[in-house]
Amino acid sequence: MSQHVSEAATALPVVSTRIYPRGALDILSRDEVARLKDASAGGMHDLLRRCALAVLTSGSASDDPRAAQELYPSFDIQVLQQDRGVRIELVNAPAMAFVDGELIRGVAELLFAVVRDLAYTAIELGPEYAADFESSAGLTDAVFGLLRNARILHPIEPNLVVCWGGHSIGREEYQYTKDVGYELGLRGHDICTGCGPGAMKGPMKGATIAHAKQRRRRTRYIGITEPGIIAAESPNPIVNHLVIMPDIEKRLEAFVRLGHGIIVFPGGVGTAEEILYLLGILLREENAQLPFPFILTGPTAAAPYFERIDQFIRLTLGEAAAARYEIIVADPEKVAKRMTAGIRKVREHRIAQKDSFYFNWGVDIPLPYQQPFVPTHEAMAALDLRHGRRPQDLAADLRRAFSGIVAGNVKEEGMRRVEQFGPFQIRGDQDIMQALDALLRAFVEQRRMKISGEYRPCYRVIA
Amino acid sequence: MSQHVSEAATALPVVSTRIYPRGALDILSRDEVARLKDASAGGMHDLLRRCALAVLTSGSASDDPRAAQELYPSFDIQVLQQDRGVRIELVNAPAMAFVDGELIRGVAELLFAVVRDLAYTAIELGPEYAADFESSAGLTDAVFGLLRNARILHPIEPNLVVCWGGHSIGREEYQYTKDVGYELGLRGHDICTGCGPGAMKGPMKGATIAHAKQRRRRTRYIGITEPGIIAAESPNPIVNHLVIMPDIEKRLEAFVRLGHGIIVFPGGVGTAEEILYLLGILLREENAQLPFPFILTGPTAAAPYFERIDQFIRLTLGEAAAARYEIIVADPEKVAKRMTAGIRKVREHRIAQKDSFYFNWGVDIPLPYQQPFVPTHEAMAALDLRHGRRPQDLAADLRRAFSGIVAGNVKEEGMRRVEQFGPFQIRGDQDIMQALDALLRAFVEQRRMKISGEYRPCYRVIA
Amino acid sequence: MSQHVSEAATALPVVSTRIYPRGALDILSRDEVARLKDASAGGMHDLLRRCALAVLTSGSASDDPRAAQELYPSFDIQVLQQDRGVRIELVNAPAMAFVDGELIRGVAELLFAVVRDLAYTAIELGPEYAADFESSAGLTDAVFGLLRNARILHPIEPNLVVCWGGHSIGREEYQYTKDVGYELGLRGHDICTGCGPGAMKGPMKGATIAHAKQRRRRTRYIGITEPGIIAAESPNPIVNHLVIMPDIEKRLEAFVRLGHGIIVFPGGVGTAEEILYLLGILLREENAQLPFPFILTGPTAAAPYFERIDQFIRLTLGEAAAARYEIIVADPEKVAKRMTAGIRKVREHRIAQKDSFYFNWGVDIPLPYQQPFVPTHEAMAALDLRHGRRPQDLAADLRRAFSGIVAGNVKEEGMRRVEQFGPFQIRGDQDIMQALDALLRAFVEQRRMKISGEYRPCYRVIA
Amino acid sequence: MSQHVSEAATALPVVSTRIYPRGALDILSRDEVARLKDASAGGMHDLLRRCALAVLTSGSASDDPRAAQELYPSFDIQVLQQDRGVRIELVNAPAMAFVDGELIRGVAELLFAVVRDLAYTAIELGPEYAADFESSAGLTDAVFGLLRNARILHPIEPNLVVCWGGHSIGREEYQYTKDVGYELGLRGHDICTGCGPGAMKGPMKGATIAHAKQRRRRTRYIGITEPGIIAAESPNPIVNHLVIMPDIEKRLEAFVRLGHGIIVFPGGVGTAEEILYLLGILLREENAQLPFPFILTGPTAAAPYFERIDQFIRLTLGEAAAARYEIIVADPEKVAKRMTAGIRKVREHRIAQKDSFYFNWGVDIPLPYQQPFVPTHEAMAALDLRHGRRPQDLAADLRRAFSGIVAGNVKEEGMRRVEQFGPFQIRGDQDIMQALDALLRAFVEQRRMKISGEYRPCYRVIA
Repeated sequence: MSQHVSEAATALPVVSTRIYPRGALDILSRDEVARLKDASAGGMHDLLRRCALAVLTSGSASDDPRAAQELYPSFDIQVLQQDRGVRIELVNAPAMAFVDGELIRGVAELLFAVVRDLAYTAIELGPEYAADFESSAGLTDAVFGLLRNARILHPIEPNLVVCWGGHSIGREEYQYTKDVGYELGLRGHDICTGCGPGAMKGPMKGATIAHAKQRRRRTRYIGITEPGIIAAESPNPIVNHLVIMPDIEKRLEAFVRLGHGIIVFPGGVGTAEEILYLLGILLREENAQLPFPFILTGPTAAAPYFERIDQFIRLTLGEAAAARYEIIVADPEKVAKRMTAGIRKVREHRIAQKDSFYFNWGVDIPLPYQQPFVPTHEAMAALDLRHGRRPQDLAADLRRAFSGIVAGNVKEEGMRRVEQFGPFQIRGDQDIMQALDALLRAFVEQRRMKISGEYRPCYRVIA
Repeated sequence: MSQHVSEAATALPVVSTRIYPRGALDILSRDEVARLKDASAGGMHDLLRRCALAVLTSGSASDDPRAAQELYPSFDIQVLQQDRGVRIELVNAPAMAFVDGELIRGVAELLFAVVRDLAYTAIELGPEYAADFESSAGLTDAVFGLLRNARILHPIEPNLVVCWGGHSIGREEYQYTKDVGYELGLRGHDICTGCGPGAMKGPMKGATIAHAKQRRRRTRYIGITEPGIIAAESPNPIVNHLVIMPDIEKRLEAFVRLGHGIIVFPGGVGTAEEILYLLGILLREENAQLPFPFILTGPTAAAPYFERIDQFIRLTLGEAAAARYEIIVADPEKVAKRMTAGIRKVREHRIAQKDSFYFNWGVDIPLPYQQPFVPTHEAMAALDLRHGRRPQDLAADLRRAFSGIVAGNVKEEGMRRVEQFGPFQIRGDQDIMQALDALLRAFVEQRRMKISGEYRPCYRVIA
Repeated sequence: MSQHVSEAATALPVVSTRIYPRGALDILSRDEVARLKDASAGGMHDLLRRCALAVLTSGSASDDPRAAQELYPSFDIQVLQQDRGVRIELVNAPAMAFVDGELIRGVAELLFAVVRDLAYTAIELGPEYAADFESSAGLTDAVFGLLRNARILHPIEPNLVVCWGGHSIGREEYQYTKDVGYELGLRGHDICTGCGPGAMKGPMKGATIAHAKQRRRRTRYIGITEPGIIAAESPNPIVNHLVIMPDIEKRLEAFVRLGHGIIVFPGGVGTAEEILYLLGILLREENAQLPFPFILTGPTAAAPYFERIDQFIRLTLGEAAAARYEIIVADPEKVAKRMTAGIRKVREHRIAQKDSFYFNWGVDIPLPYQQPFVPTHEAMAALDLRHGRRPQDLAADLRRAFSGIVAGNVKEEGMRRVEQFGPFQIRGDQDIMQALDALLRAFVEQRRMKISGEYRPCYRVIA
Repeated sequence: MSQHVSEAATALPVVSTRIYPRGALDILSRDEVARLKDASAGGMHDLLRRCALAVLTSGSASDDPRAAQELYPSFDIQVLQQDRGVRIELVNAPAMAFVDGELIRGVAELLFAVVRDLAYTAIELGPEYAADFESSAGLTDAVFGLLRNARILHPIEPNLVVCWGGHSIGREEYQYTKDVGYELGLRGHDICTGCGPGAMKGPMKGATIAHAKQRRRRTRYIGITEPGIIAAESPNPIVNHLVIMPDIEKRLEAFVRLGHGIIVFPGGVGTAEEILYLLGILLREENAQLPFPFILTGPTAAAPYFERIDQFIRLTLGEAAAARYEIIVADPEKVAKRMTAGIRKVREHRIAQKDSFYFNWGVDIPLPYQQPFVPTHEAMAALDLRHGRRPQDLAADLRRAFSGIVAGNVKEEGMRRVEQFGPFQIRGDQDIMQALDALLRAFVEQRRMKISGEYRPCYRVIA
């Protein structure tokens, strides 16, 4: 590794160097190296630059990778070809990722993961394979292929707990996620999260301490992200396996098929959407017999949050839906014990079904859950939020409604649409729509949804 | 592993059981498992059955897998699908591969290698990829892909010595190959051969003892074979990495790109062909600067054999060709020392060229060397064995001439052609043709080419 | 491991169980097991019980093992014999050391270390070996034997940094020790401390994070303690190698012979004594050529602390003494870089001297530094704190004076002596005695020496 | 490792070099190094030189280390001290143990074992410990200590098969020992023998091949020898753990306490003595409940040999004695299956008795079996070979009679005694003495006891 430290255009110290990847990138054919080089110099380049910078500033005080873009304007990354494989050139990279001029090994691994996954997406999931993505099986295969290429599919005992929750939570809630992670770690569980800060970092941090105490050497802290999110939520420094899925839907499917159980900590609207996504899947008849530990938990102060969500679910999807999860308040040890018991059942079920331990082929995820939802006025008007529908169908539309409303309130694209065409028109029963509204207002009050000015609904209910 | 021992239709004891593969086969997608199952039940099935039987009788007294086909007529193998992966059913398999009803672990590994490589060939190199095989780069990529999938490409220090030579050699020559293998093993070299008996087994056996003495734990005894040969030369029991290439040309390319040096022991016409193949490549200007240790060696009694070959090469391809190899008689230690020194140069060259250690991208192998040669009368008449041609071109045609003449003398298909259309007509200078003839007669005399009745040339020289 | 959870006599939850040791305890002869059982049932039992409890409450909120004695009054530990080896019975042990009834693995390891070292001391360093302890070489051999038996002597590259400093330091100083540990860990150093809280925990914690980032798997966080201290400073939960030396002097010798460099953070009088101990050794002519990285460091606020110590050393021991250490203020990265450079020199020196990497045989530690100092009035009167003596002799007496004054002010035994016989009489030059007094007053002001009531010197200067 | 190749005084090529030991020798105290140096320069030196030469010529054609003494007259070995540990100087050592000037790693390991064990015997079992050797427990502790120091006591699953038998057996018998070793190796057993050629080498060789096939990496081929034997039976090159016990009795005890079962192949009088030794122990009431697989086996041609021994045992020790072993003729697979089943019972028994897996504390070996027997006329006259005694007592005396008769016939010391004082007088029943005589004559006929001239009994029977 040759390197050169300079001050560049910016005041912050930077380093320029070249590195040689290991892992999935160390044995490529000449042709693959050439395609990787082309992709990284072409359309993929800006994305690669952005993701690489997020990784190189991982663990920085601000934890805001957008700031990183401004702090390191002259940063660049090039993937070059040479006979023996790939070479990566870093230009004016943040010095904080280096020790005495040498890239920190864990950061290097995450950087290789970025190149590996973007390359896989560009080369193996490119336009020529588009046809495969019109079937549910084809999309699942894409998720499988990317995860296998990332080398996180191993035939080991089920022990992977997925943790969801907000990235900007309060100190008490953060401490609670650490406590839960600690109890999980003591019991030998590995952790998988969205790989950012807050509830995505706390469980990993707690588990790290517990794993050290239990002298576990081969631990997994898996972070699954996607290009739109990594810019906002850079991987925390504990992550030792990073995967970048091509889009939100594949990321959600990866969570569900990789994890042996899911814990949800308090979070914002995104977290609520994730809960509805998972419920929509678990409520399908095809998945009725499938054991799937699903726990909502938080400290005492978070109890009202879960009560409200619980009420909303019972109102809209019924008691059967509420039977699919368990709410545990302020008891990390109980959470860990229930998860351990639940995963034991998952294990037995996989053996009985001859399903693999490392990928949940058995769970049925239908095409609509795999395809992106774009909240146009037409799409929103097509939703049908009324009692009497099958719960899994209603759950899917609720998730979409949620997604659209959030977009109309806080996302640039959505806000512009509402300004231009007026509020969305949503078809739904009165009580459901009111409950939805109340939930959103509560998020605003609890500062879980950030909004400038006063909250004004961006939709209108129609009969 | 459940199993059932029975006597079946044959007198020899057999075992029926099911096994679950590891290695490259343990993390397949549902789709890949389905395609593997289809391929193994369809066109690939007979091939699979034959190769599997060769592996299951490896190390048997007779070492003749064709006998195996008759001894185990009711043997069958099925690849089945289940959610968690692949299951292999063995029906009436030779009991000699089992201990107390359990398949010997090394045999199981070879068996998985058979399934893995045939599946790769059927699925990844199938008809839909035919277009790629019309370019040299495409064919090299196929070789690379298969070897990578077989997990024998590792970024470790260059130490792989390829050994060529006859499969039915005398006791003295066999002992000599062991002695050379021993000296190579003492110096830390791994061995790669065609994986059958004779000169393909001896070097591995010698190296095994030396590796044990040097306490080397991670040793590689790589056997590279192809479907047409595995039936005649079943893998010897020392092989711990087995690769089945789709055809002879890809097998030869695999030897040249994997090995860091090549040793040739006495052998028959096949060995002579291999020497011409390698010389043809090394004599290209593109490969002029390429270090490539190439040693012909045997015990004192084999000296005349190499003298004759040396004379033939000097006459036809010139002194420059002879400068590409070294002949060492009856000195295993010297062979090993020269090989060690040669590989040191290979290492330096790879580093200087930034070529990988595990695959020789730098050696230029042109399309004609990669495509099969079918010795029809037309093809033979198109050869041009005259002085004045570029040595590499003449070497290529000599190899083909050789191949055709052997076919006309001993291979069913070739003999039928000669019977039907008369002797091949070969265009060549008188002295070259006489030398060729003399060489062939010598092989017959030394019993290195088996012929029924008296030797009669199957070709005619034309001006 | 069979176990039984109960509430026992105390309100705190406890667990009774039996465990089977590993490590140095797993292959004992029947005779050794019998002697171990006898020792642990006899004179060693109370000590064993106390140390075991400190380990079992490691990481608890209070971090005060004396409290532990009161909180778990019915706790007991028995070492029992059975043919296959040792069995340890825990009765009413703190439930916090268990997960779902099973002892946390790291805690178990520390517990085995306690038994191992107390057993070694009782059996191998018992009264019958007393004669060996009257020579310096004999005492060094005892230190070596105990460390070897604890399996922390390994022939690996020099990378062990000893960190000294106070156990009750402020938040800012604690954070600073973490920062230094982090920078050391990034550069591949392992950490050795006195194994308690404060400056003994911070560097390990920082190093843990850095080691994770650098993907170092085989890390060492060595805690060296002794029976009188472990009761007050229970091992922090990061320690993965615990050693219990028989007394303070052997503990200090272990630090000096094991470590490849020493960093001193701010601390109380104990820390000052340690500095004088090390200086006294390094100032000997025998050690003049010995490279030994020795850095005093702390955050900006601690600068006056080190200035004062520096002044005192220059006044008493001269400039040559001050040349043996470096003071670095508020620059963790610089500390780590200097230590790295220093250890590089240590490595070269060991190679040149053919000394081992894992034990500093080369450093000369004379008998007076190895034997305990008991501060009687006679012993104090025998001190000679005057200019003109050899610095190493003066350093030894200064350390003793220090030790005695502290005893006279805060230790029960010493205070009683002063009360009974009047203040100690110390012979010394006026300026030295004044400087000593000023230093002690400063410690009191900075709350680094805890005193009830006003500070009154417990000694009188005599000509 | 610096080295220098020369021709020295002898015609055979030799190498002089210095090496630095690993293993048990790499972490010694300065004092231990000094004592080792003294011992190896003093009384131990000739022994060390002899054993080292046996190891350095291991695997040579002649396999006769006495020849080695003559072939390398100028060979010498010195153990030197330096701060970092031990250095070994080899002067004019056989070049065959080196590759390109570097000592073969396995040979180096055996050499370190020689130094290690002779040093342990000289230092830890020296005269000052003589008192301990007057009790049975003290002697067993010495055996345990030496084996632990040699690092062959590991808490792993029972799988160690001891093989006894002649060192100069015929080709057919040798092949048979290989076949048995192969079947044992296939079933995961490790092998322990006397470490010489013949029946001590064959089982290891067979097991090596089987272990390779079963992909076992951590294999143990333990050779246990003693100074008087290593000169005649140099360690075969497969041995990867060599132990040199101080005398024959400790060597026999090591076999019995280490092994989980014993197989006896055909051999000479030494082998017969070993059988009587083991029977004498197993027939004690204290060992009546002890499972101990004990199999006598050989090819068809060896059947008469075992019949004769069986008859002799039944006549002298009774049917109960014959029930302690099983004779299997010409069936290696059956031998391996019975041994596997027997070891399973040993395992259960050890668990039930809480005895260790790695050392058979449970077997009772009384003092007379642990102390050397010197066959003077007095000692021989004190034997009592009559019916009516307890079988274990008679077995002990039979073994001694055997030993004395052999000495009187073939050992220099014994022959001289007989010449001087006339034949030994042995007290015994007529039929027993005749059977003994017949057995000895049979050994002579079968060329299992080498005698110059005609066989003449060296004893007289008295009433």
